[in-house]
Amino acid sequence: MKSKITFNKVQYDESLGSWSSRELDIVHHNTGMGTYAGGPYATMYVAQPWTIRQYAGFSTAEDSNQFYRHNLAAGQKGLSVAFDLATHRGYDSDHPRVVGDVGKAGVAIDSVEDMKILFDNIPLDQISVSMTMNGAVIPILAYYIVAAEEQGVSVERLTGTIQNDILKEFLVRNTYIYPPTPSMRLVTDILKYTAAHMPRFNPISISGYHMLEAGAPPHVELAFTLADGYEYLEYGKKAGLSLNDFVPRFSFFFGIGMDVFLEIAKLRAARILWSELVIKAGATKDRAKLMRTHCQTSGWSLTQQDIANNITRTALEALAAVWGGTQSLHTNSMDEAVSLPTPTTAAIARNTQLFLQQSTGICQWIDVMGGSKILDVKVNEIVQQAQSIIDEVFTLGGMTQAILSGYPKKIIEEAAATKQAKIDGSEEFIIGLNLFREEESQSVESLRINHHKVFTAQSKRLSEIKKNRDQSKVIKSLRHITKTCRSEKYNILEAAISAARHRATLGEISSAIEKAFGRYQAPISGLSKVYAVHSMKNKYFKTATQLAAVFDSKYGRRPRILIAKLGQDGHDRGAKIIAAGFADIGFDVDMGPLFQTPSEAAKHAIENDVHFIGVSTLAGAHLTLIPELIRQLRSASRADIHVLAGGIIPAHDFKSLFDSGVLAIFGPGTNLAEAATKILKLMV
Amino acid sequence: MKSKITFNKVQYDESLGSWSSRELDIVHHNTGMGTYAGGPYATMYVAQPWTIRQYAGFSTAEDSNQFYRHNLAAGQKGLSVAFDLATHRGYDSDHPRVVGDVGKAGVAIDSVEDMKILFDNIPLDQISVSMTMNGAVIPILAYYIVAAEEQGVSVERLTGTIQNDILKEFLVRNTYIYPPTPSMRLVTDILKYTAAHMPRFNPISISGYHMLEAGAPPHVELAFTLADGYEYLEYGKKAGLSLNDFVPRFSFFFGIGMDVFLEIAKLRAARILWSELVIKAGATKDRAKLMRTHCQTSGWSLTQQDIANNITRTALEALAAVWGGTQSLHTNSMDEAVSLPTPTTAAIARNTQLFLQQSTGICQWIDVMGGSKILDVKVNEIVQQAQSIIDEVFTLGGMTQAILSGYPKKIIEEAAATKQAKIDGSEEFIIGLNLFREEESQSVESLRINHHKVFTAQSKRLSEIKKNRDQSKVIKSLRHITKTCRSEKYNILEAAISAARHRATLGEISSAIEKAFGRYQAPISGLSKVYAVHSMKNKYFKTATQLAAVFDSKYGRRPRILIAKLGQDGHDRGAKIIAAGFADIGFDVDMGPLFQTPSEAAKHAIENDVHFIGVSTLAGAHLTLIPELIRQLRSASRADIHVLAGGIIPAHDFKSLFDSGVLAIFGPGTNLAEAATKILKLMV
Repeated sequence: MKSKITFNKVQYDESLGSWSSRELDIVHHNTGMGTYAGGPYATMYVAQPWTIRQYAGFSTAEDSNQFYRHNLAAGQKGLSVAFDLATHRGYDSDHPRVVGDVGKAGVAIDSVEDMKILFDNIPLDQISVSMTMNGAVIPILAYYIVAAEEQGVSVERLTGTIQNDILKEFLVRNTYIYPPTPSMRLVTDILKYTAAHMPRFNPISISGYHMLEAGAPPHVELAFTLADGYEYLEYGKKAGLSLNDFVPRFSFFFGIGMDVFLEIAKLRAARILWSELVIKAGATKDRAKLMRTHCQTSGWSLTQQDIANNITRTALEALAAVWGGTQSLHTNSMDEAVSLPTPTTAAIARNTQLFLQQSTGICQWIDVMGGSKILDVKVNEIVQQAQSIIDEVFTLGGMTQAILSGYPKKIIEEAAATKQAKIDGSEEFIIGLNLFREEESQSVESLRINHHKVFTAQSKRLSEIKKNRDQSKVIKSLRHITKTCRSEKYNILEAAISAARHRATLGEISSAIEKAFGRYQAPISGLSKVYAVHSMKNKYFKTATQLAAVFDSKYGRRPRILIAKLGQDGHDRGAKIIAAGFADIGFDVDMGPLFQTPSEAAKHAIENDVHFIGVSTLAGAHLTLIPELIRQLRSASRADIHVLAGGIIPAHDFKSLFDSGVLAIFGPGTNLAEAATKILKLMV
Repeated sequence: MKSKITFNKVQYDESLGSWSSRELDIVHHNTGMGTYAGGPYATMYVAQPWTIRQYAGFSTAEDSNQFYRHNLAAGQKGLSVAFDLATHRGYDSDHPRVVGDVGKAGVAIDSVEDMKILFDNIPLDQISVSMTMNGAVIPILAYYIVAAEEQGVSVERLTGTIQNDILKEFLVRNTYIYPPTPSMRLVTDILKYTAAHMPRFNPISISGYHMLEAGAPPHVELAFTLADGYEYLEYGKKAGLSLNDFVPRFSFFFGIGMDVFLEIAKLRAARILWSELVIKAGATKDRAKLMRTHCQTSGWSLTQQDIANNITRTALEALAAVWGGTQSLHTNSMDEAVSLPTPTTAAIARNTQLFLQQSTGICQWIDVMGGSKILDVKVNEIVQQAQSIIDEVFTLGGMTQAILSGYPKKIIEEAAATKQAKIDGSEEFIIGLNLFREEESQSVESLRINHHKVFTAQSKRLSEIKKNRDQSKVIKSLRHITKTCRSEKYNILEAAISAARHRATLGEISSAIEKAFGRYQAPISGLSKVYAVHSMKNKYFKTATQLAAVFDSKYGRRPRILIAKLGQDGHDRGAKIIAAGFADIGFDVDMGPLFQTPSEAAKHAIENDVHFIGVSTLAGAHLTLIPELIRQLRSASRADIHVLAGGIIPAHDFKSLFDSGVLAIFGPGTNLAEAATKILKLMV
């Protein structure tokens, strides 16, 4: 059907399906940058609004399915699946290491049967599906393909995105399974498979979001994200794919913070930098030079203290994303500073986007910021700052090598510790947190997850699957996966699809790959003096250092603390910041490795004879893992080691944590030096 | 103190106190318009953020004072006083016509004693005070001056703004007292007095806000507001004031709706138009050509259905105001669609502005939209549309004459009825209202006002004042006011200040003026066929017209309804729209005059033998006035006349209204044809 839309006095011919040279001229003209800064389409939201894509997963496939269907009926156009951490890290729900993580922070998927329930009555040839999966990307993508196949939808017709951005996992978030180099093999095999079979599917979403969340300033977020993108592009090229064909299917994913103007500038800078990188790599077609983005409002900018205004923060961030020209958007719910969203808060977040599209007139105009003179100044500044970091990455030999050198992670962690110190020292302000804090805080009902119920249901389904399948075919297909990993002859995703058809579980497929590649253990590093230098104005810092000195003279050694991350929760921004801050205050800090079990952490603490264990928890497993840690300490007669909890913990869980023996709980927005003062006072 | 601020590579020299020619160049350069479109100051928020000015008044002077002091402590920089309707309309709290209005929608001020309590412990030489007063502008300004004087602050040191924009009251809102022409005498006397004695005080705030709220599109809001401004300017000039001296003290007040881009364009267009009008009037100094604005987010855009997202609507509107370059801002509270704000919702609204200033980076950049190409197109379009209406006003002889002709009110009312019809007919959408309405609505605790307590306290204070004052001096000073009104020899404000010192009440001063000028009765007009033409897609419209026809054949005449406004509530947008819609559906509509008492409305209804009385109430007096109306009907044995209530009525008042005999209650967001269907079904 041929139809015409009038906008800005330009006729856009829908039947063209892409831009005419006239339209490209308009983009150039509007942006005033001579590049594709304003957005990838000349017509932008006038022709098609951005996709409202809310990232969500509720414990079980059944619950998630119901939620998705409700949202699709209420105007949402695409799905975005959040998986639980056990799934991310390649464990079945009944694995002993993931007690406490199952069904927290997203949906548990153990096999293709779970995936089929997840998309029950959702036509996969019509609804685009985004899946945030990196570690266990092979079995998850295989399950998605087989679930569609058994729904009668062939792989060619699938639309959506899989995150599949493993490089950033080594910088932030940490939901990797295998080491960096073999992980890149998995990415490459997915690029190859999708290039051959999935023309409408985005095989990769290169993500800066978690860098922003970890504290990276915009130019750092851009630099590492684009350098990641360039690395994937190089691997695809080496695998023999045509740049002009596969690069247009790359999509990017950025976080959007509260500085509206800066974030708009960032998105424009990203497009300029990417087009330059793609040209440098040798692409010649316009489509390859254009950057398509998904954006998500910042979770970090949400506060526990002034919770109603989290709606406002999110709305402004949404506007920044949209005026920055994003293609799809997730808006956070107001309660995500304390828990996963409830249906009510999720509806508010979704409606924010609906009324941006329907009531604000935003979709009537393209590139409203194009031509702004001050914006141009800022965009160019970000481009230059990011470019110099990208150049450094190239000098190190690309992102895979840079990650092994530790360079990107160090830059991000320094930025995060600096930011925390500035907030604690009142150099930066967050309203309702360290400025104009209201005495009476607004409370919302937060979501409670019945973790035991999920665990039991998943375990039951797993044993049924294992009982009913052809075991010999499963074993054969798993062996084939391991073999495929060891040679470059076959495609690992293809091998996994076959295993998925035979009902191999996610844990089994992941183990088969692990046999060839091994499991990655990240090196542990610490920062020094970053927190201290910004603590001049922090009234608690001096007190805390004095108390640490008193402690030293009283006990004959410095206060010693183990910063522990339990379970599969890889969000270590908080833990790293606490480690940096406490070290500067005068603590002897042990930074525990990621993914410890409670008994491993207890053993670690006892062997090093610490005074405190600080458990940083952001993924909702605290009610299972922290009491277990305390039981382990008690049974080893070391109940004298104090356990502290910090992170995202809903108020309704405080009592049962205190009952189990937790000494103190620190939420988001805690001043580190104040927390140190509080716990030291208990002992000196 | 001399200090320098670096921004955009430009050095701003604070000690200059105004712009250097270099800075003016920057403005010109940044806006790209060759005018002052981006804002009145070259340095904008970099040098000084906009003033957070929350409009609020709670029933009594004591409560309001406490609220202001809390807000000032929490970061607010200026006050904005909301008065109750009795005060607006020049009645003391104990006047029989204002039963039900006292202490609703704002603070009751009867004398200088109330004003002194209102500003107790608030240093009037340091805190700028904005007063939304038009009708009773003379006694209120006199009380403010005398209260300051008795606080030891001389009149020269007062800073702030009085709305004093009587012309727009005749178009919308209707809180006038005297007819248009003598009302302009009051404005002129205030301009003269402030020019001579109050160099830091803005004697007028020319308001478009209520036009936007009444449904006017941006160019209409601009046209009538600027034409009002031009009229004041002409009166000032005729009174012998120097344009270059008094025009720079004019400030403007605009409403900001949800269309962010459009509202930014509107504010820029306003500045261009005003500078042209001021030049046309003969001003030569730059300061006279610059427009300073206060903005308020739109109350009309708030919905009762999706109440949490009202926070979002307000935040986006706030951003539009700020990126549009406003000098001060009021952000509405989420619950203002149902009642006056509670302390909690008021804090959320204030914090929206605080974090815009502190966390978003907005204040670091000037004129971020300057140079946008598409914006320029839109700005020019609005300028041209508004100019043609302004030209029409000039043809009619200026705004005072235009008002007497009925032209501006007709244009605004047509726009409002059209908009309502489009929403009812689903041509326009409001999320949560007629699109994606959630079954379960979010509720908030709304404010309840103990009206009787306020009335009793005010009455008691009034009798005390009357007992303790020198009665002969009061009578003499009131006589002097009436005499001053009848000649042009003395200043009416000066006469009122003298009466205020002697403790004359607001009702007494207003009556003294009324003796000379009379009280204004607005002519009643109706619209025809405006609603019907946009009702093609309204599924209820056809049903309603059919039911009206059935009614006609059953009862031998068309259904007849009196649309009544009771008490001092002059917001008649809703009433006018209902009248227009019901007439088009087939009702015989009686539009009652504004400001009826319940017994007047009952008499009116009985004499015209109506079937229904629809009471439109927006000012919180419904619990007093509507039951009284029903009592009057019953005592005249006309209980068969059905009473309906519509407007802003909190849910917790529904039961007592139904108990008193109300047949149906319709809130904001009611589809008119659906409402008509509902009530007609009860009778056919």
